[in-house]
Amino acid sequence: MADHNALPLVVLAEKFASLPGIGMKSAQRLAYHVMSMDKESVEDFAKALISAKNDVHCCKICQNLTEREVCPICDDQDRDHSLICVVETPKDVTAFERTREYGGVYHVLHGLISPMDGITPDKLRVKELLGRISQGGVEEVIMATNPTVEGDATAMYIAGLLKPLNVKVSRLAFGLPVGGNVEYADEVTLFKALENRNYM
Amino acid sequence: MADHNALPLVVLAEKFASLPGIGMKSAQRLAYHVMSMDKESVEDFAKALISAKNDVHCCKICQNLTEREVCPICDDQDRDHSLICVVETPKDVTAFERTREYGGVYHVLHGLISPMDGITPDKLRVKELLGRISQGGVEEVIMATNPTVEGDATAMYIAGLLKPLNVKVSRLAFGLPVGGNVEYADEVTLFKALENRNYM
Repeated sequence: MADHNALPLVVLAEKFASLPGIGMKSAQRLAYHVMSMDKESVEDFAKALISAKNDVHCCKICQNLTEREVCPICDDQDRDHSLICVVETPKDVTAFERTREYGGVYHVLHGLISPMDGITPDKLRVKELLGRISQGGVEEVIMATNPTVEGDATAMYIAGLLKPLNVKVSRLAFGLPVGGNVEYADEVTLFKALENRNYM
Repeated sequence: MADHNALPLVVLAEKFASLPGIGMKSAQRLAYHVMSMDKESVEDFAKALISAKNDVHCCKICQNLTEREVCPICDDQDRDHSLICVVETPKDVTAFERTREYGGVYHVLHGLISPMDGITPDKLRVKELLGRISQGGVEEVIMATNPTVEGDATAMYIAGLLKPLNVKVSRLAFGLPVGGNVEYADEVTLFKALENRNYM
């Protein structure tokens, strides 16, 4: 389709088309748009790509993505470090922060247990969570995984591991629509779900 | 919204969101996707951006975008260089090439005359077209601008300039699109189709 375009444009369009949710037609339009951008903006874009790949890694405490060694949330002494909210992805942290109602810290699992997809607990950041709790000072762990089969299973599994460690374990209230997604929940629903959490 | 993400991811998401047709939510998803790509692919993407901006320029003959001095179409001696198809954008060249039926060459105007938007003929590649034709060897110029007010005006304007140069000037036929439907055709298209009917 793009055979008769200049080669660098074809190459760039293919790169855009390899991203999720971008078709070949949009990718071509984006490639043309890049040509019309000024040189500095294109260079900044290229640098941002490299930087997002190279400079971002997991916070050594909560495993959220950050460009520092310890993320700003774990580093914030005004937050309640005795309360840990366990989520599946970094996007879920953003969703909770949007409620402006949660003052504790987080732990990002980077996935949910799903034996069908070969995701066993050792592939998640569960060890790191147990490590944090065994250091003491943690009073409550809120399981804030999605209200799906995998989310529930992961919450149950981790709750089981935490039982001997003498911490309260709670689960987000099912104010969330079952089968839904934490990332896309509106602020009020998410806040209600947080407020009505059930102790396990 | 993305305040609590790692800074490089926020920056990259903003770059994606600055592209046409990509909202903040998609941009964030794309930024996360970039993180999950392998390092080499991200570097290739960054290089492709820079290359599309730096290595692509206009063919010195037809003004189509190319990474060479003369584009492959102008350089192809098997094509009919006495037939020039005048189009608005490089994308239109791709559209014609897809038909696999056109054996002539092109001239890309990079726009249409639109006094309302401040696009006067001197902002288009009209001089370059006149230069090509004055060198001789051109028998016919096909005006293949869009069938819109601006497209028609541009075709008429250029046809006027070409009159003293003793070349045939033609305009794309207007009619029903193949696979189209009389019932849903707009009045002007239907009138054009009627006016330009072919006797069987």
